[in-house]
Amino acid sequence: MFDPASLKYDANGLIPCIAQEAATGEVLMVAWMNAEAVARTLATGRVTYWSRSRRAFWVKGESSGHVQELAELRVDCDRDCLLALVRQSGPACHTNRRSCFFTAIRDGAEVEIMQPEG
Amino acid sequence: MFDPASLKYDANGLIPCIAQEAATGEVLMVAWMNAEAVARTLATGRVTYWSRSRRAFWVKGESSGHVQELAELRVDCDRDCLLALVRQSGPACHTNRRSCFFTAIRDGAEVEIMQPEG
Repeated sequence: MFDPASLKYDANGLIPCIAQEAATGEVLMVAWMNAEAVARTLATGRVTYWSRSRRAFWVKGESSGHVQELAELRVDCDRDCLLALVRQSGPACHTNRRSCFFTAIRDGAEVEIMQPEG
Repeated sequence: MFDPASLKYDANGLIPCIAQEAATGEVLMVAWMNAEAVARTLATGRVTYWSRSRRAFWVKGESSGHVQELAELRVDCDRDCLLALVRQSGPACHTNRRSCFFTAIRDGAEVEIMQPEG
């Protein structure tokens, strides 16, 4: 059996989790989980982070409706990073863009490569 | 102009960087950079991390030959996480697997979904 306590958490009890759109492979965002958030994500199938600013569980999309349905959770070789394959409803980013990684560095300058959704 | 000092680093002066295979979208690994590693990555086109264990710059593949050629570096909305689109030579993981995320959690158990390369 998988035990969330078997993962390696940082000094704050947190582990980073990458959310990747299962259908397209697009990397959407990175946020943090504690052991309980990992357990809730697996139990509910709704990706649940720990909000460092609010110091509270953060069921992604709970207020915005932009939920992340878990397709599969993966663990890396060092057990200190997670990869969540998700089915994202609407934009993942709080700026209303599909992904948080909408800024590219090209020829030494920042270029916005993704617009907010309508 | 993009200035690596404009990113948000943690208390240790580090920022996490996801390496994603540019051709396939596969997430390969996550490692850390400091501002100088970001600058070197952009200047050389060879993805360069900061090794927390060795406390030294880590030009990915320098000893193994499994280099990561940078296709594009992206910054997230909070400026505290990087996404490097790369062309990976050979396996990215030190276990000789293509990706470090070779363990999936399925039905509450850990399943190895990727074998070491030959």
